[in-house]
Amino acid sequence: MVDSCQHCEPCQHGLEQYCEEFPTLTYNGTDRHDHTTTYGGYSEKIVVSDKFVLKVPDGLDLAGAAPLLCAGITTYSPLRHWNVGKGSKVAVVGLGGLGHMALKLAKALGAEVTLFTRSPGKEQDARRLGADNIVLSRDDSQMAAVKSRFDLIIDTVPYVHDINPYMPTLNISGTLVLVGYLGPLEPFLNSASLVLGRKSVAGSLIGGIAETQEMLDFCGKHGITSDIEIIQMQEINAAYERMLKSDVKYRFVIDMASLKA
Amino acid sequence: MVDSCQHCEPCQHGLEQYCEEFPTLTYNGTDRHDHTTTYGGYSEKIVVSDKFVLKVPDGLDLAGAAPLLCAGITTYSPLRHWNVGKGSKVAVVGLGGLGHMALKLAKALGAEVTLFTRSPGKEQDARRLGADNIVLSRDDSQMAAVKSRFDLIIDTVPYVHDINPYMPTLNISGTLVLVGYLGPLEPFLNSASLVLGRKSVAGSLIGGIAETQEMLDFCGKHGITSDIEIIQMQEINAAYERMLKSDVKYRFVIDMASLKA
Repeated sequence: MVDSCQHCEPCQHGLEQYCEEFPTLTYNGTDRHDHTTTYGGYSEKIVVSDKFVLKVPDGLDLAGAAPLLCAGITTYSPLRHWNVGKGSKVAVVGLGGLGHMALKLAKALGAEVTLFTRSPGKEQDARRLGADNIVLSRDDSQMAAVKSRFDLIIDTVPYVHDINPYMPTLNISGTLVLVGYLGPLEPFLNSASLVLGRKSVAGSLIGGIAETQEMLDFCGKHGITSDIEIIQMQEINAAYERMLKSDVKYRFVIDMASLKA
Repeated sequence: MVDSCQHCEPCQHGLEQYCEEFPTLTYNGTDRHDHTTTYGGYSEKIVVSDKFVLKVPDGLDLAGAAPLLCAGITTYSPLRHWNVGKGSKVAVVGLGGLGHMALKLAKALGAEVTLFTRSPGKEQDARRLGADNIVLSRDDSQMAAVKSRFDLIIDTVPYVHDINPYMPTLNISGTLVLVGYLGPLEPFLNSASLVLGRKSVAGSLIGGIAETQEMLDFCGKHGITSDIEIIQMQEINAAYERMLKSDVKYRFVIDMASLKA
């Protein structure tokens, strides 16, 4: 975000991401003053409302810190809102840009962290990133073994998928929070799994500005950055194709110096 | 409930309704000791585990208090879990046995209370029961007028229905809790309404034993009972047909003396 209305109820409570007039997004938004389109990470310079300027802590690699403003805050905000800390049991669905940050941040917050994945072979990377356990979501016996286990599940999958199989793995009063997918929950979510355990399905969108600074400071303290691959501007189309195939560990960062090459 | 395993994690935390071995329900359950079927309100006597005995406060009409053990606690528990009190804005979907108790209890807890209903003509009764506002859910302009208004919506509708239209009426971080329906949420719930406002869809089942006693004491203090119609046992089949047509304000109570008539 680079701006918001700054006067509505959510804006006045540090929830600029839920601005009633919708925030001005860094990328593909429309500037509130001159009505030009925003170009985000493809820009050499960005004009930002003064209240939306953030400070990257000293000591963090700038390239590795760049994705914290998206994948970092998107996963940090629900972890904080649902009070994750020492003793919490957190699961993460999906190991991509969002998922790998969720593992790092949940672990740094003191939680026991589990990765749900459909693909075998991600175990080593997941453990390196902070997962204590890996559960193959297609393996019924592995799923049954984590019945009623998690206080919070962060679901990072960016396309339509069945969330029903994850509901029994939530503990009483647990929450599954969607952070990667906007659209109809297909197949039908069954309310029995909600009622018979006071469980919730929720959603969360990036984070507020103060919370984003808190996240950056937290990452500075714990030495957390995103795992990245630096590309040249000229490689952007190939990188886009690779991103569609999930062939990136775990975020591309463009070296803007290449624009002048 | 008349019993539960009493040793699992939920049972040890006063959440016997979520007992991992499922509680023994008052009606149509199977006794854990002699394996007979429970008959609930159709019984002259009920055998209850000592820890499941509740005290009806002095001064409450016994017939009017009977439905508190079902409709009362089913609506009281989510009101308390989601911290409803003075200043809260609560909406109730549906005006039946559960809904009329939700209005009374939310009002007594200090909330501003709104009833969502499909039927005009319920206004007078709803106001008497505690509603400050009535919104016809089929009226788009009335629905738009309560956009982003509610902290908690208690949805008491006992059959499949579309919950999507209620989601925009939740405030940021608000929750819609289903208490009356077990089954697929048709049509598809759209996750955009969750993500773009950190909203939740949850469920809740009756309440724990300690919380049920708390609810009874609360009702005693505030003089709250269920609105009832007392029937003779011989009228039970006609009452059942009337219940299917929502023709009861708001709970039938059987006069057990009629069994000996």
